[in-house]
Formats: sequence, structure tokens, C-alpha cells
Amino acid sequence: MPTVITDCPRVALPLVDRFQSFGVATVHEAQGRVGLMHARLRPIYRPAHIAGSAVTCTVAPGDNWTIHVAVEQCQPGDILVVTPTSPCEDGYFGDLLAVSLQSRGVRGLIMAAGVRDTATLTEMKFPVWSKAIFAQGTVKETLGDVNLPMVCAGVLVNPGDLIVADDDGVVVVTRLSAESVLEKCLAREAKEAQTRARLAAGELGLDIYAMRPRLAEKGLVYRSARDQEATEC
Amino acid sequence: MPTVITDCPRVALPLVDRFQSFGVATVHEAQGRVGLMHARLRPIYRPAHIAGSAVTCTVAPGDNWTIHVAVEQCQPGDILVVTPTSPCEDGYFGDLLAVSLQSRGVRGLIMAAGVRDTATLTEMKFPVWSKAIFAQGTVKETLGDVNLPMVCAGVLVNPGDLIVADDDGVVVVTRLSAESVLEKCLAREAKEAQTRARLAAGELGLDIYAMRPRLAEKGLVYRSARDQEATEC
Amino acid sequence: MPTVITDCPRVALPLVDRFQSFGVATVHEAQGRVGLMHARLRPIYRPAHIAGSAVTCTVAPGDNWTIHVAVEQCQPGDILVVTPTSPCEDGYFGDLLAVSLQSRGVRGLIMAAGVRDTATLTEMKFPVWSKAIFAQGTVKETLGDVNLPMVCAGVLVNPGDLIVADDDGVVVVTRLSAESVLEKCLAREAKEAQTRARLAAGELGLDIYAMRPRLAEKGLVYRSARDQEATEC
Amino acid sequence: MPTVITDCPRVALPLVDRFQSFGVATVHEAQGRVGLMHARLRPIYRPAHIAGSAVTCTVAPGDNWTIHVAVEQCQPGDILVVTPTSPCEDGYFGDLLAVSLQSRGVRGLIMAAGVRDTATLTEMKFPVWSKAIFAQGTVKETLGDVNLPMVCAGVLVNPGDLIVADDDGVVVVTRLSAESVLEKCLAREAKEAQTRARLAAGELGLDIYAMRPRLAEKGLVYRSARDQEATEC
Amino acid sequence: MPTVITDCPRVALPLVDRFQSFGVATVHEAQGRVGLMHARLRPIYRPAHIAGSAVTCTVAPGDNWTIHVAVEQCQPGDILVVTPTSPCEDGYFGDLLAVSLQSRGVRGLIMAAGVRDTATLTEMKFPVWSKAIFAQGTVKETLGDVNLPMVCAGVLVNPGDLIVADDDGVVVVTRLSAESVLEKCLAREAKEAQTRARLAAGELGLDIYAMRPRLAEKGLVYRSARDQEATEC
Amino acid sequence: MPTVITDCPRVALPLVDRFQSFGVATVHEAQGRVGLMHARLRPIYRPAHIAGSAVTCTVAPGDNWTIHVAVEQCQPGDILVVTPTSPCEDGYFGDLLAVSLQSRGVRGLIMAAGVRDTATLTEMKFPVWSKAIFAQGTVKETLGDVNLPMVCAGVLVNPGDLIVADDDGVVVVTRLSAESVLEKCLAREAKEAQTRARLAAGELGLDIYAMRPRLAEKGLVYRSARDQEATEC
Repeated sequence: MPTVITDCPRVALPLVDRFQSFGVATVHEAQGRVGLMHARLRPIYRPAHIAGSAVTCTVAPGDNWTIHVAVEQCQPGDILVVTPTSPCEDGYFGDLLAVSLQSRGVRGLIMAAGVRDTATLTEMKFPVWSKAIFAQGTVKETLGDVNLPMVCAGVLVNPGDLIVADDDGVVVVTRLSAESVLEKCLAREAKEAQTRARLAAGELGLDIYAMRPRLAEKGLVYRSARDQEATEC
Repeated sequence: MPTVITDCPRVALPLVDRFQSFGVATVHEAQGRVGLMHARLRPIYRPAHIAGSAVTCTVAPGDNWTIHVAVEQCQPGDILVVTPTSPCEDGYFGDLLAVSLQSRGVRGLIMAAGVRDTATLTEMKFPVWSKAIFAQGTVKETLGDVNLPMVCAGVLVNPGDLIVADDDGVVVVTRLSAESVLEKCLAREAKEAQTRARLAAGELGLDIYAMRPRLAEKGLVYRSARDQEATEC
Repeated sequence: MPTVITDCPRVALPLVDRFQSFGVATVHEAQGRVGLMHARLRPIYRPAHIAGSAVTCTVAPGDNWTIHVAVEQCQPGDILVVTPTSPCEDGYFGDLLAVSLQSRGVRGLIMAAGVRDTATLTEMKFPVWSKAIFAQGTVKETLGDVNLPMVCAGVLVNPGDLIVADDDGVVVVTRLSAESVLEKCLAREAKEAQTRARLAAGELGLDIYAMRPRLAEKGLVYRSARDQEATEC
Repeated sequence: MPTVITDCPRVALPLVDRFQSFGVATVHEAQGRVGLMHARLRPIYRPAHIAGSAVTCTVAPGDNWTIHVAVEQCQPGDILVVTPTSPCEDGYFGDLLAVSLQSRGVRGLIMAAGVRDTATLTEMKFPVWSKAIFAQGTVKETLGDVNLPMVCAGVLVNPGDLIVADDDGVVVVTRLSAESVLEKCLAREAKEAQTRARLAAGELGLDIYAMRPRLAEKGLVYRSARDQEATEC
Repeated sequence: MPTVITDCPRVALPLVDRFQSFGVATVHEAQGRVGLMHARLRPIYRPAHIAGSAVTCTVAPGDNWTIHVAVEQCQPGDILVVTPTSPCEDGYFGDLLAVSLQSRGVRGLIMAAGVRDTATLTEMKFPVWSKAIFAQGTVKETLGDVNLPMVCAGVLVNPGDLIVADDDGVVVVTRLSAESVLEKCLAREAKEAQTRARLAAGELGLDIYAMRPRLAEKGLVYRSARDQEATEC
Repeated sequence: MPTVITDCPRVALPLVDRFQSFGVATVHEAQGRVGLMHARLRPIYRPAHIAGSAVTCTVAPGDNWTIHVAVEQCQPGDILVVTPTSPCEDGYFGDLLAVSLQSRGVRGLIMAAGVRDTATLTEMKFPVWSKAIFAQGTVKETLGDVNLPMVCAGVLVNPGDLIVADDDGVVVVTRLSAESVLEKCLAREAKEAQTRARLAAGELGLDIYAMRPRLAEKGLVYRSARDQEATEC
């Protein structure tokens, strides 16, 4: 029985917005290297960087009907996250749907399938992460679900989860962990800023991270090419 | 016996040119969702958008000799369409061939294999849709055919067929259907312009396309997250 | 036993620098169509074009520890070349490592695996050729080797070999052949400049390369579409 | 913090065993076409068909240490289900681990990565579904989790869920739904047996499923090739 | 408008049957290396070897309805050839459809998508060549065409064309060329039998095919490893 | 200049033969996890297991001419190892070449491309590891090299190197290390036999390998599902 869940709770928008300054790699590290979607999801244009609340949507292969249903459930600050019930690269989404989402304040689309009208989407500055770009059309015969939990590109997504997407990919932060992940991101960024300055000044990571004793322990051997005549180096 | 067919009829150039304003998705829809090449054919730079008449060419794997033969058959408004007789990603085509084609008024290349010199091709603004970018060179030992019907990236292409290519991919319109497809494209664009305006104003596709009764018929159920304590949403 | 070879000989920097003006396709052709890495290695931004001396580095799957070791072996004019010991697309390399390499005068990275922080790498103008863009993090538990010979993306690379990378891919020139390959590149470029001018003026490759007799010998047949009523062309 | 959950509840073994007679396609249909792992998971030998309770295990790329930890959590009737935290095709599992699992009554392995020693595993009749067969070894440096919920080959798996695997792939039945899915499988099988007999006797699916009126409604047209001279058929 | 063409002419069954003794490689060579489907189409069990007349069928992604329509058009000696209108790996076909086809004397299935129930299909000895094995179910909402010309796995197939399939893949022989291709196959087989005997007796292909003069002409150089101290061989 | 090196030294045949009893995984581990070809090389039938001395051969894409040249260089105990100069899946090798190789005592073929006539090769018991099975024919126009060092499926192979291939893949042992690798294989097998017996008796790897202290050190936590009401397990 195809189902739509309405009124799903989201992360508060001010909290969502604070994630706009963090890259996907940072968020992924900060929350312990979980929640990252497959590398095959790529932005249709670069650079692109958004954070928002997930509206989840499953679609049948070659059938985008449920996306029309999902649009109505979207509100400002949302990101629509769509996954087909079996692998499909058809162009489920084009410029008309983007106009509709943009008019509702939706920040972008995560589509574990194909999209089309990408030249127009780029002009509109409507960011999309997809598995393929393909003009192949879809039908409207079979319904999926909106705002049920689903697995998208290898990650469990619940409606209202926080999505961060940039040129490196897409990461999911569970709704209840958003606050604590934010703190870890801030801490990580602060620490990285310091490290970056030291590295830029020529210090080595081997020293900054105090790696040399452990390298020795692992038996790392240094030999000079000058000392070896018979080698290729 | 390798064969070249000369003097192939084309779609009249003014008719060809009218297709320059339609995206691949529009043409593909207008002609009933047929004629679309595989999603693996991608433009080497974006945005890119051309329409033209097909000069068809088959090549042996790792051998670009026939492309040199095909160049002579090209005239202004043409698009060269090349497919290997077995899958190959070698760099069949580079900047010298592009200079030659451009000097003959050719509008671009559809290559179901690899190309190279892509930085120069981009500077030259010579658009190419290809399966790969690969510097691997080719030999000149085995001949294919020019202007025989062939299957390219999953689609039958006859010489003189109309090709439209943009950021979404490549579509083939048969020569004899070009006029009627043009009309359908125009009708589709007109209708979409109206829909776009309504969507931009916040109307929902569900209402514009009158989908609600059919959704109900399919048994679509709406439930509020507020009513369910035990769910995850 | 993980090993680092220090003080590896390189091609003299002035000789390296002369390769910056040659595309990968030119170098690959000039040295007899060898040394080309797989087409899957793609630049994270385009255009990008570098030449430099290889510092080689193997890494365990999902483990970037050895890259930190390799940084110390890099000097101005170098290119770091990294390959995993089994296929992996994790994001081994990000902006902090790039800052460190850039501070040492390293010209870019060839990574037969994944990288991340690509928006920042693009802003920094630190060019990277990689198999994937993926935010997935790595650990620091297992060591590989630095500056031992290794196979990267299908090509044997010795430390100190010359690397040229551009939008078409990555090619390796062995250290001892660099001088002779340079001469062949120059000769090739000179010859291509002449050919390019003739092609731009409308001459055909068939005539410039004197292909017609050999085409006839291969039995190439020309038939006019006007002469055949029953054909599709 | 790497974690092992012990004493996870399972489906009662007699109920598990009743699933041994149902194919994956049947179970997948019976529970509404959900729970199917990616098609890339293939059995290392055929035919193979098992049902059992999931012990879940995540592993780092190129590191099979956690599998050794998971073995201890297995009991008769279990199936070990392993997924790497980022995509990896290394040979995580070989004949020694199989001996250990077999001695504990484990029925097979679902491995969303690579396995090795497949000739021996086949002789031992220890069935494995994997993404790759690859002799590449792994290290023992980094820990994952055992018996936490995880996504494997696109499907959420909780410890104690029911797994059915055969030549068509792998399907997951949630622990709490096992009983009701069994009933649906039985009903489906009964119905299919009847249909099979009618089809074998030459009746058409079009008639058995009463499809003709709906085909007409969709506008399906029948034309005889004999009536059309100008067509290719 | 979805269309079924009935009463399509076929190659006479005795002629079809003579192709059962030729491998796909032989037929493909005999007709000049054309008509071969993509290598991704693989038999679900081996060995398998059939020849028959094509009944063509297109299906929507994730929708097998048209296959039920196509069954009625099949007669003894036919092979059902199915291609989705966009790439899809769902399990369109299972044991019930196979029972139905087998009861009508159909010799096998070519499916440029996925199939399921493969253990049963193997037991039934109903041979299938497919792109994937995947239990994923399909719906019955959208119609394709039966017995219209179509491109399947890269090859144009007309209804009534002759199909030969074995462990090496699938080849299409156009209906009108079947007779002449048969002759070429017979000639080729006869010649190969002679060659095989000479090769088995230890003669070299270099001599049987008189290749040595042309090798010399191409500049092939023989050097003995014993004469070179400084080489690696 | 295409080159054939004759009279290459091999590993002594009795030493080669001792490797027939070791699996690829064992050899790969014994020599420190190097020398393993890509997982895409798969045996055309299983089980298959050979050891022999490499005759190396490069071929142009779609051109098998050099294989005929290589046959003459083969002697009893050899394995022919072929790699294309750019990726290609054509059917370079069929039953006639196999007859020729078998008549010379060659033990099998490693082909980093496609092969055909696989039903016959299977009947002949001529084992082949290949990247693809594809009936696509090849031409004889362009020469590669025989018995020069080359990279095949990611591994450097020198003529005379020892090749071991089984159901898990293909591994290369350098000629000069064969003796020492043999000893390590024997040691490894002996140790594994002991471990296997203990595992079969129900001992845990955790105990046999004394892993528990190091697991504790890594912070591994055990929690019982019975103690947690609010968890899903």
C-alpha cells in the first residue's frame, strides 16, 4: 500500500543552516565515518554545496509519479531524496519539477538514479546529485512511498534527517544527532585550521601528528638510492 | 568490402537549424521516447548543444582510418557519428581531425568510443560526445564503412538522420520524421512554458496534471507523523 | 618490510619543464604509444596540465598513512604518484595533504584511488588525477612503500620517472628516455603545426597523408546514394 | 567504539528451516518486493540455497579482523552477513574461516566484498554469496562492529533477521515479519503450482490472468504482417 | 501506440535447424563479423547452444507485461528476444513464463535485462541469455511492442531473423541471408577441420597461414635472450 | 619495432611443477601479497588450476596476429600470457589456437582481453583465464611484442616468470624468487593444516591466534542484547 507520511519533524532550520559551512568530508569524519552515500552520486555542476532536511521518496524503475506526490510534502529548507526500488538510470527529474521545488524553497535533489534538463538546472542553480544524466523519460503508473525510512545509495535515510552535499558527495546525519555532530564539526574545523597553518609553513605531518615513533615500531626502513648501485631507483 | 556511400540526402538545413532550440529530452519525448543513445555518451565540455545531419562511420577497434575517409563526405551542417565494430575506448579523434571537420562546417562529433586532445577541442569550441577521454592512439590498417546504416550507442542511425545533442545526451530523429517531430517539439515547448509558469507560481503538479483521483484509485494513503508515536518518522 | 628510498635521482628540472608544453597524447605518440595510464584516472578539474618527477607510493586499501611518509620525500618539481595495493576508491587525500605538498613545491597528485575536499583543491589550484571523488575517510594502521618501482593504473612507474598529465590522462616517460622523447615531441609538434594549417585551409587528410592508393588497394568502394533506389540511404 | 552485541534474538530454528523450500524470488514477492540485495552478490557455486539467521558484521576495507570476532557470535542455523565500510573487493574470507564457521553449524556467508579459496569452499559445500572472487589478502588492524544494524548490498539488515539466498540472489526478511511472510510464501507457491499446470497444458497467461480487456484499454493494436507489404516484417 | 505484428515470416525450420551445429563465433565470422550482441549477454547455464527464429519484444523498465503478450506470438522453433526501452536489470522472466514458452516449443530466451528462478530454469533445461540474474520483480502497467524491428544488445533485430546462441554469446542472422550464411558456415567449418588437424600435428599457424613473409615486411625482429646480457629476459 | 625474444630462461620444470599443489591465495600470501592480477581475470571453467612459465605477448586492440607469433616460442610447461596495448574485450583466442598450444605442451592461457569457442576449450580441457567471453573476431594487421616485459592485469610480468592460476585468479612469481617462494608456501601450508584441524575441532581463531588482548587494547566492547531494551537487536 503506497504511503505518504505528512508532518514529519525536521531539524530546526537555524541548526540546519549551520551545516552549510561544513564540507561532506568534515561531517563524515566528525560523526565517525558513517552515513556517506556511494561515490557514484555526483553533482550535475560544480561547485555545489547544500544542507537541508530530507524528504524521502521511493520510485518504481522508469516511473517518476511519486516525485510529484513528494513535492507537496516539501517545505523551505528541505532536500528531496529519491531512490528507485531497483537500479535505474532513467531521467526521472527535469526542469519543470525543479521549478516546482524551487518555488517551495527546496534546496536541491539527491537522486539515486538519472536526471535530465541539466543545462537548465545548472542555469537555475538548482543543485542535483545523481547517478546518471540521461534524457530517458519515465511513466506515471506505479506508486512508491514518501517519507518512509529507505536505503539510498547505501545509507539508511529517515525523513527529517539532515543531508549535507558538496563536490565530494552526500552524507546523512540522523535528526537526533545533528546537534552533537555540529559540535564535532566545529571542533574538527578549528583543529584543522591550526594544522593547515603549520603545514603551509612547511612543517611535516610526520612531526605534527608525531608519527615517527610508530613508523619505527612498524619497521619502516629508510635506504638511500645513492647507496645501492644495483637497484633501479 | 568496405564501402562509402556518397551524396546521401539530408534534412534541409533550415529545418535542421530549427532543432537547435530544443533540448534532447524534449525531442526524445516529442517523438515518443525513442531514438536516445546510451547515457554513457557524454559531452567533453558543458554546456554544448548542436543539431545536424548524420554522416555515419564504423571503425575497427583501435583503428581510426575510416574517420579520415568519412571527413571527405561531410558538408556544412553535418555531424559525424562514429561507432567501433566492437567496444573500444581508444582516442580515435583529436585536434587535427577537428580542425579538418571544422573547416568543412561540421558541427560536432558523436563518438561511441574515446577521444583525445580534449583541452584543445574545448578551446576550439568543437563539441564532442564520447564514451571516454583517453590519449591512447590508434592505427590505420583496417577499413570500416561510411554512410551505411549502423547501430550507435544502442540506436539505429541512417545517414542523413537528424542528430540533436546537448548536456543530457544524444537523440536521433529519422530523416523522414523530422518535420513532424519539429511540430511536436513546438507543441510540447508551448505547453511546458505554461506549466512552468504555474509551477513557478506555486501550483502543484498534482493539481495541474489532475493526478489526485488516480492516486486515490491506486490506494495512496496519507498518514500524519504526529499520529504515530511508535514510528521512526 | 615497508621501505622508503631516499635521494632518488630525477630528470633535471629544466628538462622536466620543457614537457609542460606537450599534451599527453603527443608524448604518448612520440614515445611509441607506451606508458599511458588507464582512462579511469581523470583530473578533478579542467583544464589542468603538469609535468614533474615521480615520487612513488603504495598504500594499503583504506589506509593513507604512507602518503604522510611520502610527503617528506618530495621536492620542488615533483609529482606524487600513489597506488593502492588492491583496488580502492576511498578518499585518501584531502586539502591538508595538498597544503603540505604545495608548500614543498609539489606540482600535483596522481592517485589511482579516491580523493576528497575537491572544492578546496580546485580553489587551491592543486591538480589531482584520480579514479574517484569520494569523501570516505581512511585509517593510519598499515604501511606501504615509498620510491620503490610500482605498477600504477596499468603502467610501471619508477621513482624519478617523468610524469605528464593533462585533460586526456596521464603518461609516464622513463627517466633515461626523457631527453630523446623530448626531441620526438618537438619534431611531432612541428610536423603537426604544418598539417594543422593545411587542414584548416580545407585540404583533406586523405591527400595530405597520401592515403588514396592504399584505400584502393584495400578495396574501398564508393557508391552514390543517387544510383540506388532500393537502399535506405 | 567497536562493539559486539551478544545474545541477539533469532527467529526460531523450525521457522527458519521452513524457508529453505522457498526461492528468493518467491520470498521477495511474498513480502511486497522489498529486502532484496544488489544483483552483484553472486553465489560462488550453483546451485546453492540456504535460509538462516543473520549475524551482522562490518569490516574495514582490506581488513578482515572483525570476521574472527564475529565467528564467536555464530550458532547453528546462522548465516554470517558481512559488509565493508567502504567498497572493497579483497578476499576477506577463505577456507580456514569456513572450517571454523562450519564447525559451529553456520549455513553460509553473505559477503558484500570478495572471497578466496573458492575451489576449497566448493568442495566443502560451504555456500558463499559475494561481490567478487579475489585472492587478495587482508590485514588485521582495524575493528568494525558485530550484530549492530547495518546496510548490506543496499538493504538494512538487523541481527537476527532471516536471510534466504539462492541462485537468484539474497533477500532479507525482518525477524518480526518471518511468520507472516512464511504464510504468504505458502499461499504464493500454492497458487503458482496451479498456474504452472495450466501454462504447461498450453493455456496462455493472457487468459489465465484475464489480461485481454486491460490490453485493449491500453490501446494495444494487432496487425498482421501479411497485410502490410511495405513493412520490414 | 503499442503494437503486435502477427504472422511474421520466419526462416524455414529445416534451415534454422542446420544452424544448431555452428558456434556463434563461426556464424559471426561467416557473415563478415556483424550481428553480434554485446558480451554482457551471458547464458544462465553452460553449455547451452540453440538456433531459432526471433520473436521480438520491447518492455518498459521494471515492467514485464509485454512478455505475456509476446508468448502468444511464439511457435515451435522460435526464440523470444526481449529488450527494455531503457537499461534495466530487473528479473523480468521466471519459471512460469518458461513453462509457458516451453509448452509452445520455444527454444530459449534472449533477454537484454535480468531473469530469475534460474535454478528452476536450469533444471527445466530452458536456456536463457541475459544481462543479469536478479530476483527483483516487475509490474504490469506499461506496454511495449511485439514483432517490430528493435535494437537488442547493440544489434538490429527484425522479427523472423535467425538467432544463434551458445556459450560465447548471441548472433543475429538476417532472415534473407540465412541460406547464404549457412553455406559460408559449412565452408568455414570444412576449412577449419583441416587446419585443426595440421595444428594438432604440431604444424605452426605461421606456416599454415604463410605469415612469415608478411611478418618480415612489418619489420618483426627476433633476438635471442642468450645474446643479451644487459636485458631482463 | 615489433620484437620477439627467443630462448628466454625459465624456472626449471620440476620446480614449476611443485607449484601445482598451491592455490593462488597461498602463493600470493607466501610472497608478501604481491603479484596478483586483477580480479576481472576469471577462468572460463571451474575448477581449473595450473602452474607454468610465462611466455609474454602484447597485442593491438582487436588484432590477434602476435599470438600466432608467440605460439612458436612456447614449449612444454609454458603458459601464454597476453595483454592488449589498450583495453579490449574481443575474442582474440579460440579453439584452433588452443589446439596448437596444446600440441606444444602449453598448460593454459592468461588473456587480459576476451576469448571465444569456450564450449570447445572446456571440452578440450584447455584452461583459460580471461577478462571476457566474446565471439567478436580480430584482424591480423598490427604486431606487438613477444617475450618483452609487460604489465598484464596490473602486474609486471617478465618472460620466464612463474604463473600460478586457479579459481581465485592469477598470481605471478618472479623467476628468481621461485625457489624461496616455494619454501614459504610449504611452510604456510604446513601451518595452515594444523590450524585447520584445530578450527574444525571447534577452537576459535580468537584463541588460536591469541587475538583477545589486542582486541581489548583496541577498545572492543561486548554488550548483551538482553541488557538493552531500547535497542533494535
